[in-house]
Amino acid sequence: MFIKNAWYVACRSEDIAEKPLGRTICNEKIVFYRGHENKVVAVEDFCPHRGAPLSLGYVENGHLVCGYHGLVMGCDGKVVSMPAQRVQGFPCNKAYAVIEKFGFIWIWLGDISLADETKLPYLEWADHPEWSYGGGLFHIQCDYRLMIDNLMDLTHETYVHSSSIGQKEIDESLPVTHVDGDHVITERYMENVIAPPFWQMALRGHHLADDIPVDRWQRCHFYAPSHVHIEVGVAHAGHGGYHATKDKKVAAIVVDFITPETETSHWYFWGMARNFQADNAELTEQIRQGQGKIFTEDLEMLEQQQQNILRNAHRKLLMLNIDAGGVQSRKIIERLIAAETQQNENTIRQFPNIHVI
Amino acid sequence: MFIKNAWYVACRSEDIAEKPLGRTICNEKIVFYRGHENKVVAVEDFCPHRGAPLSLGYVENGHLVCGYHGLVMGCDGKVVSMPAQRVQGFPCNKAYAVIEKFGFIWIWLGDISLADETKLPYLEWADHPEWSYGGGLFHIQCDYRLMIDNLMDLTHETYVHSSSIGQKEIDESLPVTHVDGDHVITERYMENVIAPPFWQMALRGHHLADDIPVDRWQRCHFYAPSHVHIEVGVAHAGHGGYHATKDKKVAAIVVDFITPETETSHWYFWGMARNFQADNAELTEQIRQGQGKIFTEDLEMLEQQQQNILRNAHRKLLMLNIDAGGVQSRKIIERLIAAETQQNENTIRQFPNIHVI
Amino acid sequence: MFIKNAWYVACRSEDIAEKPLGRTICNEKIVFYRGHENKVVAVEDFCPHRGAPLSLGYVENGHLVCGYHGLVMGCDGKVVSMPAQRVQGFPCNKAYAVIEKFGFIWIWLGDISLADETKLPYLEWADHPEWSYGGGLFHIQCDYRLMIDNLMDLTHETYVHSSSIGQKEIDESLPVTHVDGDHVITERYMENVIAPPFWQMALRGHHLADDIPVDRWQRCHFYAPSHVHIEVGVAHAGHGGYHATKDKKVAAIVVDFITPETETSHWYFWGMARNFQADNAELTEQIRQGQGKIFTEDLEMLEQQQQNILRNAHRKLLMLNIDAGGVQSRKIIERLIAAETQQNENTIRQFPNIHVI
Repeated sequence: MFIKNAWYVACRSEDIAEKPLGRTICNEKIVFYRGHENKVVAVEDFCPHRGAPLSLGYVENGHLVCGYHGLVMGCDGKVVSMPAQRVQGFPCNKAYAVIEKFGFIWIWLGDISLADETKLPYLEWADHPEWSYGGGLFHIQCDYRLMIDNLMDLTHETYVHSSSIGQKEIDESLPVTHVDGDHVITERYMENVIAPPFWQMALRGHHLADDIPVDRWQRCHFYAPSHVHIEVGVAHAGHGGYHATKDKKVAAIVVDFITPETETSHWYFWGMARNFQADNAELTEQIRQGQGKIFTEDLEMLEQQQQNILRNAHRKLLMLNIDAGGVQSRKIIERLIAAETQQNENTIRQFPNIHVI
Repeated sequence: MFIKNAWYVACRSEDIAEKPLGRTICNEKIVFYRGHENKVVAVEDFCPHRGAPLSLGYVENGHLVCGYHGLVMGCDGKVVSMPAQRVQGFPCNKAYAVIEKFGFIWIWLGDISLADETKLPYLEWADHPEWSYGGGLFHIQCDYRLMIDNLMDLTHETYVHSSSIGQKEIDESLPVTHVDGDHVITERYMENVIAPPFWQMALRGHHLADDIPVDRWQRCHFYAPSHVHIEVGVAHAGHGGYHATKDKKVAAIVVDFITPETETSHWYFWGMARNFQADNAELTEQIRQGQGKIFTEDLEMLEQQQQNILRNAHRKLLMLNIDAGGVQSRKIIERLIAAETQQNENTIRQFPNIHVI
Repeated sequence: MFIKNAWYVACRSEDIAEKPLGRTICNEKIVFYRGHENKVVAVEDFCPHRGAPLSLGYVENGHLVCGYHGLVMGCDGKVVSMPAQRVQGFPCNKAYAVIEKFGFIWIWLGDISLADETKLPYLEWADHPEWSYGGGLFHIQCDYRLMIDNLMDLTHETYVHSSSIGQKEIDESLPVTHVDGDHVITERYMENVIAPPFWQMALRGHHLADDIPVDRWQRCHFYAPSHVHIEVGVAHAGHGGYHATKDKKVAAIVVDFITPETETSHWYFWGMARNFQADNAELTEQIRQGQGKIFTEDLEMLEQQQQNILRNAHRKLLMLNIDAGGVQSRKIIERLIAAETQQNENTIRQFPNIHVI
């Protein structure tokens, strides 16, 4: 069960050029391609003729052509044409609402009439001259909610990332979690600590001393359906920490879009946006590589955690104070799924002749 | 469910020399070896002693010896001997009717008393001085009937093989399908077209001009249980096409034996027989490599089609006019399977004390 | 179903140093590590916090620390501590009785109160100045009982190991099997035969002629739950065979500990102990490599046998006189499992309020 009436990141803008892209999202196998005027289209990845994946085809005159027998699929899921055939009676494919924005392709899996661009998250750092962004994509074999747990409880940095961003003081500073509608915030502040290696690198990148005490912060934000953005940074100690002026701190946003593929796998779009030294492309790449290495450590842990949980279905997991961020995020997900289920049932009751599958 | 009372190609003659060959056909795991007087034998690939695969053993004095503890299996499935053991009471293995002919080993999976050499297909081109043959074997992860569909509807050439044998005129010339007992014929003729690259190569191989218009034909023949032979060729336009004299055309037979392994995999014996320039071994190899490359394109499409169909079990496939060849072939297969099932049930009714499993 | 109240070899002493070791034994996923005073500890490989494998963690101050969020697990399965948490109410992990002895780590999977060091097998050759040992570990994808069958019926040497230890006379000398409680003995003696290549190598290693007739013996011992030790050797013919003096023979013990992983896989600890030329490390290595090569031949046969048996669940295996050693060993295993099941049921009847899962 997944939230369907929401925007998920399907892929990055650069992932679709000439060739269509086949990708499974929330158990639905979808083909993405650039149609008329380069606009991205998403329809079911299944040719109504003989079941070939449409993603093996090609785009011609803005239409997707099946690579097996030449059926031409329209952006609305209706068959446009097929050589020497009348196609009016052909069954339709599901078509999806899609938006290209902020460098990503966003998809709405549920009721297309509810797909509203205003429900997209606002990314202040995207397409902004004072900000710079670098990131990547991992295909991870675990429940996407384990990734949400991971990002909403950063005490794991002490253990999983001990050589880069981990430090003992994370453990010692209990986080505080708030819930505000479909938004969860978990905050942690550490004062007068030594910056760990990743942040020393960032300080040097911003021409700041890396060997004096700093104030460090982590402000994790969960937004439904499954986006986690984390404000992170360090400031030279005593200058206001999170609120210090730009010349005393290095601050960034860890940008995570977590898109379910199946119940036990997901697409993990990770990255970091920063508004210091935004023009320094070399620093962007250095940070991107550092972050990629760090998130690979998470990947290994999470995939093994998933396997271990599957093998021990009888055991319950603990929900400690440090887990509050993940726990609250999961509650929002469950609530929204329940609401969608209820809505579908109401629809059936109102229109009893309609068969909703 | 598969047709059992029929001859399938199990392997090529050259696939069995010194060592036995283990191969699964229609879900039955069988060991093939050369026994007395080099005659090919096929029995269940299971040692009655401890269940080791007999195909791991070796042949000695025309008998198959189990490589684990030396049990000697006879060509009739009865155990011949075992060191220091009395074997009279040992359980028997299923033995199969096998024929070596036309360069292939043929197997009959059903009632051995019905296995009749006259039911073998007649291959006019085999062992014939005016004909030459080259081919190969693919192990493909899809239902063998998807391959039959593929070969009985060549409109896919336009899309899957656009750089070799595909051309727009295939799409534009509707095929005609006839059924004659257990034989399906789908014919398509194109007049006054440009030969695509593969046929240009063949024309040059026969010392004919490759840059003038040609008449092209495709005559697909399905024979139960699962053989597809396709008469293909091009003739310089206006000389009678399919009926042109040998100096005006290049004509060949695409020879396909499609042997089910499981419900979702099969052994695909492909090849091409031709009666022009039969002595030109270099041309044979050139054609074989071209054909292998073309059929690899099908393999990729068919395996992905199979996966897509399995994921979308609720969706029905269309049966258009171009699909008539495959549709009629599948009907023959279904009819023959139903007849075999009926026959087995009648046998049980006639001999109520016999337990047919 | 496995015998649980028994000592299995879990790993070799050298397999656990700094890092913990995760290993599944009889379907239980266990983490092994060296705790206080280097003593080996084994507990369930599952962090009570969020289910991460504890084997991804590290050892600190003799305790196992979870590599995800720093939970500290005690050797008794009780949580010792966790940063910023009260752990008294945390669920416990199963803890196992473990002994390090003879160069191996032994584990008792069942009732810890019954875990008795005196029930360990006595290995006369271990830690003995006149004996030398070399061995290895294979991870084999088959039921551990197929390996017991293999080792209790050495007629397979003639076929599986024809180039090293096999010889026709093995087949011709019927073995004799005795049962003594939970101990099975299968003996075979061959007189006045030519030593096969492996034994010729050993004879040369002991400075004995390798080209004169020998008397050869194989005395296979099965001990519950799944240890097989085989006394093997050759003596110059006519000097008493098994009882010959040390200057006329090369004698050794094939040491096999067979630890189930799942129903269809096991850990195979193999080796050879000998009391001739014990100081010759080069000979030890030569023998170890020869044995490793030989046992790889078994591995291939056994994994294919397993697959073949799974595919033919309806077929029964034969139990011939040569199979008596394996058959009797399996009977002991079944009897001990039945006794444990009975004991568990009695416990439930005595204490009806206790829920045994």
